[in-house]
Amino acid sequence: MAKWVYSFGGGTAEGKSEMRNLLGGKGANLAEMANLGLPVPPGFTITTEVCTYFYAHGKKYPDELAGEIDAALAQVGKLTGRSFGDNENPLLVSVRSGARASMPGMMDTVLNLGLNDVTVKALAKSADDERFAYDSYRRFIQMYSNVVLGIEHHNFEEVLELHKGNKGHELDTDLSAAEWREVIGEYKGIVERESGKPFPQEPREQLWGAIGAVFGSWMNQRAITYRRLNNIPESWGTAVNVQAMVFGNMGETSATGVAFTRNPSTGDKELYGEFLVNAQGEDVVAGIRTPQNITEAARKAAESDKPSMETVMPEVFAQFLETTQKLERHYRDMQDMEFTVERGKLWMLQTRSGKRTTKAALRIAVEMANEGLITRDEALLRIEPQGLDQLLHPTIDPNAERNVLATGLPASPGAASGEIVFNSDEAETLKSSGRNIILVRVETSPEDIHGMHAAEGILTTRGGMTSHAAVVARGMGKPCVSGVGSIRVDYAKQTMSVAGKTFKKGTIITIDGSTGQVIEGAVAMLQPELSGEFATIMEWADKARRLGVRANADTPNDARVARKFGAEGIGLCRTEHMFFEGDRIVAVREMILADDEKGRRAALAKLLPIQRADFADLFEIMSGLPVTIRLLDPPLHEFLPHTDAEIAEVAKAMGADADKLKRRAQELHEFNPMLGFRGCRIAIAFPEVAEMQARAIFEGAVAASKQTDKPVIAEVMVPLVFTRAEFDLIKARIDAMHEAVEKETGVDVPFQVGTMIELPRACLRAAEIAETAEFFSFGTNDLTQTALGISRDDAASFLGSYTSRHILAADPFITIDQEGVGELVEIGVERGRRTRPDIKLGICGEHGGDPASIGFCDRVGLDYVSCSPFRVPIARLAAAQAALGKEVASTA
Amino acid sequence: MAKWVYSFGGGTAEGKSEMRNLLGGKGANLAEMANLGLPVPPGFTITTEVCTYFYAHGKKYPDELAGEIDAALAQVGKLTGRSFGDNENPLLVSVRSGARASMPGMMDTVLNLGLNDVTVKALAKSADDERFAYDSYRRFIQMYSNVVLGIEHHNFEEVLELHKGNKGHELDTDLSAAEWREVIGEYKGIVERESGKPFPQEPREQLWGAIGAVFGSWMNQRAITYRRLNNIPESWGTAVNVQAMVFGNMGETSATGVAFTRNPSTGDKELYGEFLVNAQGEDVVAGIRTPQNITEAARKAAESDKPSMETVMPEVFAQFLETTQKLERHYRDMQDMEFTVERGKLWMLQTRSGKRTTKAALRIAVEMANEGLITRDEALLRIEPQGLDQLLHPTIDPNAERNVLATGLPASPGAASGEIVFNSDEAETLKSSGRNIILVRVETSPEDIHGMHAAEGILTTRGGMTSHAAVVARGMGKPCVSGVGSIRVDYAKQTMSVAGKTFKKGTIITIDGSTGQVIEGAVAMLQPELSGEFATIMEWADKARRLGVRANADTPNDARVARKFGAEGIGLCRTEHMFFEGDRIVAVREMILADDEKGRRAALAKLLPIQRADFADLFEIMSGLPVTIRLLDPPLHEFLPHTDAEIAEVAKAMGADADKLKRRAQELHEFNPMLGFRGCRIAIAFPEVAEMQARAIFEGAVAASKQTDKPVIAEVMVPLVFTRAEFDLIKARIDAMHEAVEKETGVDVPFQVGTMIELPRACLRAAEIAETAEFFSFGTNDLTQTALGISRDDAASFLGSYTSRHILAADPFITIDQEGVGELVEIGVERGRRTRPDIKLGICGEHGGDPASIGFCDRVGLDYVSCSPFRVPIARLAAAQAALGKEVASTA
Repeated sequence: MAKWVYSFGGGTAEGKSEMRNLLGGKGANLAEMANLGLPVPPGFTITTEVCTYFYAHGKKYPDELAGEIDAALAQVGKLTGRSFGDNENPLLVSVRSGARASMPGMMDTVLNLGLNDVTVKALAKSADDERFAYDSYRRFIQMYSNVVLGIEHHNFEEVLELHKGNKGHELDTDLSAAEWREVIGEYKGIVERESGKPFPQEPREQLWGAIGAVFGSWMNQRAITYRRLNNIPESWGTAVNVQAMVFGNMGETSATGVAFTRNPSTGDKELYGEFLVNAQGEDVVAGIRTPQNITEAARKAAESDKPSMETVMPEVFAQFLETTQKLERHYRDMQDMEFTVERGKLWMLQTRSGKRTTKAALRIAVEMANEGLITRDEALLRIEPQGLDQLLHPTIDPNAERNVLATGLPASPGAASGEIVFNSDEAETLKSSGRNIILVRVETSPEDIHGMHAAEGILTTRGGMTSHAAVVARGMGKPCVSGVGSIRVDYAKQTMSVAGKTFKKGTIITIDGSTGQVIEGAVAMLQPELSGEFATIMEWADKARRLGVRANADTPNDARVARKFGAEGIGLCRTEHMFFEGDRIVAVREMILADDEKGRRAALAKLLPIQRADFADLFEIMSGLPVTIRLLDPPLHEFLPHTDAEIAEVAKAMGADADKLKRRAQELHEFNPMLGFRGCRIAIAFPEVAEMQARAIFEGAVAASKQTDKPVIAEVMVPLVFTRAEFDLIKARIDAMHEAVEKETGVDVPFQVGTMIELPRACLRAAEIAETAEFFSFGTNDLTQTALGISRDDAASFLGSYTSRHILAADPFITIDQEGVGELVEIGVERGRRTRPDIKLGICGEHGGDPASIGFCDRVGLDYVSCSPFRVPIARLAAAQAALGKEVASTA
Repeated sequence: MAKWVYSFGGGTAEGKSEMRNLLGGKGANLAEMANLGLPVPPGFTITTEVCTYFYAHGKKYPDELAGEIDAALAQVGKLTGRSFGDNENPLLVSVRSGARASMPGMMDTVLNLGLNDVTVKALAKSADDERFAYDSYRRFIQMYSNVVLGIEHHNFEEVLELHKGNKGHELDTDLSAAEWREVIGEYKGIVERESGKPFPQEPREQLWGAIGAVFGSWMNQRAITYRRLNNIPESWGTAVNVQAMVFGNMGETSATGVAFTRNPSTGDKELYGEFLVNAQGEDVVAGIRTPQNITEAARKAAESDKPSMETVMPEVFAQFLETTQKLERHYRDMQDMEFTVERGKLWMLQTRSGKRTTKAALRIAVEMANEGLITRDEALLRIEPQGLDQLLHPTIDPNAERNVLATGLPASPGAASGEIVFNSDEAETLKSSGRNIILVRVETSPEDIHGMHAAEGILTTRGGMTSHAAVVARGMGKPCVSGVGSIRVDYAKQTMSVAGKTFKKGTIITIDGSTGQVIEGAVAMLQPELSGEFATIMEWADKARRLGVRANADTPNDARVARKFGAEGIGLCRTEHMFFEGDRIVAVREMILADDEKGRRAALAKLLPIQRADFADLFEIMSGLPVTIRLLDPPLHEFLPHTDAEIAEVAKAMGADADKLKRRAQELHEFNPMLGFRGCRIAIAFPEVAEMQARAIFEGAVAASKQTDKPVIAEVMVPLVFTRAEFDLIKARIDAMHEAVEKETGVDVPFQVGTMIELPRACLRAAEIAETAEFFSFGTNDLTQTALGISRDDAASFLGSYTSRHILAADPFITIDQEGVGELVEIGVERGRRTRPDIKLGICGEHGGDPASIGFCDRVGLDYVSCSPFRVPIARLAAAQAALGKEVASTA
């Protein structure tokens, strides 16, 4: 038979901290503290299983529950020397929710339960403070009526304000006992009026009402929303904690407060917290009185003239300090605690692991490991990889004022200020004259690369987290806010309008890519500071992880950043980005316009030395590490102008016929370019393009190896393959180029030829493809687009509602969809390894920098992940956590 | 140890017809005829395994081969009373290729082998005809020199022409023996000059040369191309048949000919064929002399004044007639035979199953089954389903002259003539005044539906076999030629140009959708004639098949055609096609432009009665059969105008603001609409659309069931689902509508709610989706697009080269890609049935009408296929063949 109620108190408990699922976080920790002999007001926890039962049985309780509660209440009475419902010596209790995961403020609490017209007198007598007793009673009526009877707060507040006004009082504490009694009389009138029944005087009726209300609050709208946002299953349920009341508002020897065992903001090893003398917990939160520091050191640092707890109640402080240290040692983590001092006696009401900034998390983890409190592995698991992002970019000073104009998607982290400019060419020009630019576009395209390079940050009014702007900005490590629907850009007038204001070109704005905010004017910034603990954690992570971490890098600058952040090679170099810079776009267009292979080869010959130099640079920077270069991937029309004006201009510049240019652009136009003439299909149709690129790669590698004297490892990657025949045709050309370059230079560059696996069919046919492909790089961006039938560029119109309505657990372009795309990757891995056991397997989609996805990559046995340079540290840590067995969130 | 050589002749043989793979088609049938006691010139077959050995061992032969050939030659000598290489009584042989599959004319043959300067005299003597002997010798030199020594024909032809000119001869037969001897002298000079060696006189050297040449011809360019086009594996190899020569050119009692046991054109049960007196086989082919009829009946029918074989050589004819009947009875199929009569003696040289028209195939199959020669199942397997298409549409009279302007893709079968018109509105107007129209467009879009309806046929200059034009035209059963790249359309001038000519609007052209031809002017047509045999075969097919066959039908007309062709319900009704007709597009646009749900509901209220009537019609026509209706699928921007002019016009017509219309069109614009805001995503965002459609379906069903008194089976289908949550949200709305309509009308319409499975992720998650979906319809068009990452609309630019270069075995939009898309379907079937064993499974992509794909559907256990109405008969037969175990071609 199930046990529904677990008691604690008096130095012992039926529960313990491991029973979190059954007792909830609060209940488990109260039990644990009791077991540790710490001063915990005695009480009991009604388990989460009762909650489950409650909802499974039409809001009825198990038959045995009433008996178990009576027994537990009697036990509490014994420990406190009081009795629940007794008129002379009444036991008063708090009733609090407590779910498995923390859901702060989402569910209901009732304090001072057990008070009624009779017991309030007993409380007055035992506390020797009538004012306190009636204040407590009116608080109880107010809280109970709201939580249990559903009577809105404002009914009571109006009465109270009226009273205070009539009597000329400012603060609640100004009211006398007699005045509180008057208020209570009116409160009871409100209850009778609103609920049709008098306020319940019977403590057991009060208790069952409160228990029912707490269980009921599990399904209130706030809680449902919070669970949805935090992926907490409804099936977990909440526990209910019933605990003897202790009072921090019994005069000057009473107090209440909250504290952390270490500074949650900096990680400094110091007791940190606040308290209020003669107050109940809710008063601290209410913010009416300014709390005092707990330690003298903190008081001095804060230059506060209010005395510290250390000074006011030195003995209790000493006991508290020892308790906090004991708790930290016991839980082996920084603790966030609530306590009450009732007439000089310390009571611990709550302890839990404290939330902290990433900076603090790094410091605490490293120091605790160095102290021997935790292992290095545990230290690694204590840090949220995603949080490292904060440390790698400039951020807006949290103290600075922000005049927020609009909020879009936090597409690429960091903040930047600059003049708004609506055109990439102009951005480049202005940048070269030393101006700071924010590039503002409806959306960006590959033709904006130079403008994005020039800009401090990018703002787009369309596109999602994985739009072109977002992806490229993250790759560059530049802040980007995307999809700001409320901003209207007028290219013709060179203005943007938002919130009724119009901003001309040249106006200074600030964007915060970590929050999505667009802010008027310049705002103070904090520069990134990679402290010693950061480096230490990275070093430990590298030792712990199994997955390799590479970067997606297209330019020498990307490559240098990537190496600085610890990338172990380049997992994806997108050669097409190189095609847009400077004069080379002219040669690219000549190649596209050529009438035949001869014409194409002539244009390609102009590109060869440029590409060779590009690759030589990358190989030099990455010397000794592998560099994966993907052959030309995007549809050719991306390189051509589109509007008539652009076409005329380009035709003139390149001395080509505008009509021909237009015709070719029209011929290349596609309804669904994502599924069109791109990837290896270009190399199949025009093998000379692949040949030029292969030659440039091998010649660049020869050049770099002469420069650096270190072996260059060139990995040539064929995109968008769905059948082995495609790959073989292109591989033959690459192999031939390698042979030719070796013959010409006498240098045999080590190389591999592999393929992107980015179409569902490629995953299914991986066994055959692996017969000739030496590595696979899973292109999970395209794989997500095809497996789910969602265009990244067009997803904004519905994907947001898909995640908010929980049709999808997460944006599948951010966190890999394990159930769909993930299964395809697993199939690819399994079949690829079946034919080629030593095949090198990696991932180079955006998912390569997402911690949950990295966990997945580790689990399915990939060899490495590749991500934007700025996400390399995140990936290193996430890979370490995956290796240490951190549970991977599923997208179920 | 392998046996490399198989002898035949003299009423017996070592081989038989089942040994086709080893002996090739010709060799196996020669052996079989010998076993049947038919007069076959004795000989032997060198097996295909020798060919394989030859290529696997650097063109060397197995050691044992020479000995086996010598023994076989001796055996032939014994049977003929001659001896190979003997100067007095020489055995002459033919050396012919013979692969497993027929490859007519692709490989080499050498006749009269064994002749040399000495044996030619013996031949002259034994034939008592010197002219014949020297003619034979020069033919041999010419053929051997070409085939074995690689000396080009023209060398010999020039000499011969010169001779004929000098002597004033017109025909080869005019030359005397002496003249042939002169020619032979010069021929030998050519050989010595071109090859550096004298013409080989040694018969054994000649024989080995010819054998090597035949094996070598397996890898000549013609043969390689033919194999590629006909999917014949290189590994099969060819056999070589060496056979005693018989001569049809030994005077007036000799002859040669070809015959069919039944008429290959009409299927009539009559001996059908041609012969020439005193001629060798090549003379019949050369066409210099007009061949004569074999039977008197045929001669009379043809009103020929040349005597028939029946008259010229009645005894041989009688023997031949008996032989042909014996062969047909033995092979149980219509035979195509070659024969020679040498001085009054009949020799059978070849027999094989004869090629025939579809019309003949139907007649022959039905009659043979009725005769008891074959079973009905065999009759079904004898007919190529694809061929039925010819019978269902008007076709161009094969005797008519065609002035072909251009050739595009045969996108939808049948032929049509009419005036060219470049605009759908105009097509509709002209049609209503009784004119026949060919709609000519660069490409069509859903807005052209009414123009396509009005047109006799559709011609597009872009787009592939599965472009919008092609798919819709096939659905309508109208001829369509698509992707005619050589035609340039100028909408502004209202002209099309091709082959240097310009055609104005109103010019008559003819298109042949079965061949892709575009023809100048009107051409004589043959109307379809569904003969009795067609109906009989369909009846037998229906008894044999397991798969159900439904039609994709959007209009009452489609539905009627479908029922006429035997569809067992509608498998896909695309409701969006209904949205374009008449006034309803206005309401659709109002719905799209509405600012909120209220506005959308107001517009939808106008559509409701129209849709209800649409559905009621379909349900009435299909009464008693299931009708699957798919909810709105395409992206909303397809319903909006795009150019500024169109926008202005539409805005004016609907009294809307043009700017607003333009803005909405821009908002809805997508980069990859195929992967965008479409399918169930629309119903998720705007559930009121799904509600209106569901209501229209159920109300329509109620109306129809009252009309017909037969139960209507409504199947509501949700498109583009990839996760169960989407389906559940929409199903809830549909269920609610059903309940509402039942309450309002008191009629409980039987219904099911199911989903398209058309995304890879849907296949993978089929188990969950089947928890609530009552049927799956595999949408293999979209599944192919996503699994392979190929947009149907854009595929033309590269897919053609993919199939011609054998990167893909077939166009995956025509024949299902079993290895990729097929595996996804199999996964979907397996997982769907796992949770819902009785789930109804169908397919409604274009593949539903493709015989190879239907075979696949049968194998993986689908319940039905659904295809264009005009393909229903094809599907019925293909389904029967699949059930009878016809092998399914793989796309490996």
